[in-house]
Amino acid sequence: MATRSALERARSALHLRLLAAQRRLTTEQRGAVLVLGGNDRLAASELANQLTEWFDARTVRICAPTEDAGAGRPFLWPYWQEMPAKGRITLVVGDWLTRTATAAAREELDGDALRARLKSLRAFEELLAADGTSVVKVWLETPEKSLRKRLREAEDTDAEGWVVTDDDLRLAKKAGQNLARTLRTQGSGKNLPWKVVSGGAETKLRDLHAGLAIADQLNLASRRRAAVVAKKPGSRPRGLLESAAAHPTLDKKGYSQQMAKLQPRLGRLTRLAAQKGLATIVVLEGPDAAGKGGAIRRLCGMIDAAHYQVYPTPAPTPAEKARHYLWRFWNKVPAPGHLAVFDRSWFGRVMVERVEGFAQDAEWARAYAEINDFEARLAETGMVVVKLWINLSKEEQLRRFQAREESPHKRHKMTAEDYRNRKKWDDNLRAAEDMIARTDTPHAPWIVISGDDKRHARVAALKAVCRALSDRLD
Amino acid sequence: MATRSALERARSALHLRLLAAQRRLTTEQRGAVLVLGGNDRLAASELANQLTEWFDARTVRICAPTEDAGAGRPFLWPYWQEMPAKGRITLVVGDWLTRTATAAAREELDGDALRARLKSLRAFEELLAADGTSVVKVWLETPEKSLRKRLREAEDTDAEGWVVTDDDLRLAKKAGQNLARTLRTQGSGKNLPWKVVSGGAETKLRDLHAGLAIADQLNLASRRRAAVVAKKPGSRPRGLLESAAAHPTLDKKGYSQQMAKLQPRLGRLTRLAAQKGLATIVVLEGPDAAGKGGAIRRLCGMIDAAHYQVYPTPAPTPAEKARHYLWRFWNKVPAPGHLAVFDRSWFGRVMVERVEGFAQDAEWARAYAEINDFEARLAETGMVVVKLWINLSKEEQLRRFQAREESPHKRHKMTAEDYRNRKKWDDNLRAAEDMIARTDTPHAPWIVISGDDKRHARVAALKAVCRALSDRLD
Repeated sequence: MATRSALERARSALHLRLLAAQRRLTTEQRGAVLVLGGNDRLAASELANQLTEWFDARTVRICAPTEDAGAGRPFLWPYWQEMPAKGRITLVVGDWLTRTATAAAREELDGDALRARLKSLRAFEELLAADGTSVVKVWLETPEKSLRKRLREAEDTDAEGWVVTDDDLRLAKKAGQNLARTLRTQGSGKNLPWKVVSGGAETKLRDLHAGLAIADQLNLASRRRAAVVAKKPGSRPRGLLESAAAHPTLDKKGYSQQMAKLQPRLGRLTRLAAQKGLATIVVLEGPDAAGKGGAIRRLCGMIDAAHYQVYPTPAPTPAEKARHYLWRFWNKVPAPGHLAVFDRSWFGRVMVERVEGFAQDAEWARAYAEINDFEARLAETGMVVVKLWINLSKEEQLRRFQAREESPHKRHKMTAEDYRNRKKWDDNLRAAEDMIARTDTPHAPWIVISGDDKRHARVAALKAVCRALSDRLD
Repeated sequence: MATRSALERARSALHLRLLAAQRRLTTEQRGAVLVLGGNDRLAASELANQLTEWFDARTVRICAPTEDAGAGRPFLWPYWQEMPAKGRITLVVGDWLTRTATAAAREELDGDALRARLKSLRAFEELLAADGTSVVKVWLETPEKSLRKRLREAEDTDAEGWVVTDDDLRLAKKAGQNLARTLRTQGSGKNLPWKVVSGGAETKLRDLHAGLAIADQLNLASRRRAAVVAKKPGSRPRGLLESAAAHPTLDKKGYSQQMAKLQPRLGRLTRLAAQKGLATIVVLEGPDAAGKGGAIRRLCGMIDAAHYQVYPTPAPTPAEKARHYLWRFWNKVPAPGHLAVFDRSWFGRVMVERVEGFAQDAEWARAYAEINDFEARLAETGMVVVKLWINLSKEEQLRRFQAREESPHKRHKMTAEDYRNRKKWDDNLRAAEDMIARTDTPHAPWIVISGDDKRHARVAALKAVCRALSDRLD
């Protein structure tokens, strides 16, 4: 009885510590991801429930993707959906490391694929931490003996036996424990270790231990705010875009002939992609008035409306602002067979946010690697990623601005922003050249299109997308 | 050449009219749903593309759900996802009436099922219109001969033949045309007729005709703002909730015994539901401090974290405020096999929004029928809908408020709001009684639980959900 009440007192004190930690998250405007992994899904589920009771439940959400969630999309996709806004908490059950260890223990994942997976997990955790999110991880390890006992007892009652699976038993064996330990080390971001808690103990005691580990880690994370070094990128060879100064043109007749050939061709290719489950992402970037919108409408002209979606990229909503800048793009990763066209995109981080100072130097400087990583995750699943920069000369932009102002059909496209942006032409050009140099990768190369002649640009965009799709489909 | 330029002039004038109509939507803060139906999917797709070009594309979105979108969820679910915010436009391709006509022509939908479908479509369109959304519908009808010609020509080029399917041909036959005409009449909300446009004409001319029809309808909708009569509900017998004044209690031992039986039972039932693809919605309503959160945590105590999601219902976000109040709940309709628990819900429309005056009389007065309709759509798909009202006496609420204030573990649950709401106890009670009387339906009945004793309430909530699930699963 004395022990019991000591336990209750400790739990009560922990409850207050967790509430205080949660308040601090709100004050500091930081999100927290609490990962509950291990070989005991009942323990993880119960712990998630207990934490929801201890925390103020209104700002806590449980992320427990089913095994088939996001089929055909990158492995991390279901987790990205649930990343917490600033000041909020996401509890992850069925986490990335447990799933990876399970697949490795089943011998479904090894060698280069396993190494690539672990690298992607490190990058993911570090990206969250760099953005100010606390990443706290608890590994619940229950001895094989206890799991087997629970299974035996369940034969009569079926009360808790359901949560012991072959996968759990595999991870609970000596070899599985060793494997998981190795993967926990290799799959963790820098300074983001797993804390092992015995899952075998009595529920209230186990939740106390896990809760204390979480409270400690939350405190630590708060004290040492990610000290990210602001590495500004070094200087790059200039003139990449200016030298695209030859302006190929296309006459009306040639344009009509090409369009009559290319649009049906892209229509056929996207139908084939839909049948085969091939997903495609097309990104259009370029100065204001470069003709991105017009190119997009021609791209989609003969595609079945059920197969594609065009995403404009306006200023972020409050929900988007409260999360990592990549969150709103992860949410739009196309399902198998679909085509997503982005009219401007995640590159805003290293373009407008850099030029306007919306992102700090450290933030946009590390974004190149984050973006390459994001695109690598997409490419890994077999997705086609086409990135088009539609280039424009400064003179042609001015001509188009003036034409827009004079046309009642186009006047709505002009805002005061446009002339303001134009004043930063050189800054934007520099940012674009850095961006192209730093994010031109084999799996997602940049294609620069001369945009001074609209007909030429539209045909070139169609050709580029056709080529990328036919390379994959033939 | 003269005709050509007359066509171009007419299109140019239409372009300006559409831009003006779009600006008016923004000014009047009204959304618009433009439905492009008919037997010619190529024409609908091309028209959608052309409209995107005519309108300012930044606030236009195409909704073209695939045929299997939202499998297992209500028929209207994919459309709800894409309903426009105030001031925005959604173009629907592959709409509800075309799909219904297709299913009827295939003889997959008839009799009572067809009548129920048409009724649900009328209710849906009227709900949108009553909320200030313009619902504009164009039916593109291409003669069977033209479709067959397109198919023949496509044998060589495959250019456009892909969009002619057996379904299209079926609707293009005389019988199909007659059927579609009947369904368009029976499946349209009041004053929300389809406008038929010949899909056979040359593309530019056809888009002109369709665009003119749309511009006319948008103007009409703007002039006659839904004149909804504010029918306040009549008086109802009172005392429904006050008479629940007997306060059953449960001692600690009885409680433990019941929980040890009921939690594993609900765990088993939800696992079975997951296997069978049965979706469940549980709604908890009741006064502040009634114990909804505590009951929810006990409900979920032994459910696999991957099978359920708890949704709190805070004040709506800007995106939610800009749409019909049911939108954010349609978005959370669970997938087959999943359980969604709502901590407060759509009933806020007839509770807090009524009592605080956030909704006008006409708005909350029509919400009862809208809610019953929403729940009928859920029940139709076979979903289990459990609605729990946890009742509380005014005295017990005060005791709990005071206990919360004195407890460092619970203080965070109290806000100034709570005492403010308490002052409106009688208004809230009256609203709750109206709500229960008006939304207690055979497919989604209310269950009133006495909440003065927390142990009793938790056990009663568990029992109610277990019963609803076992009724369906046995």
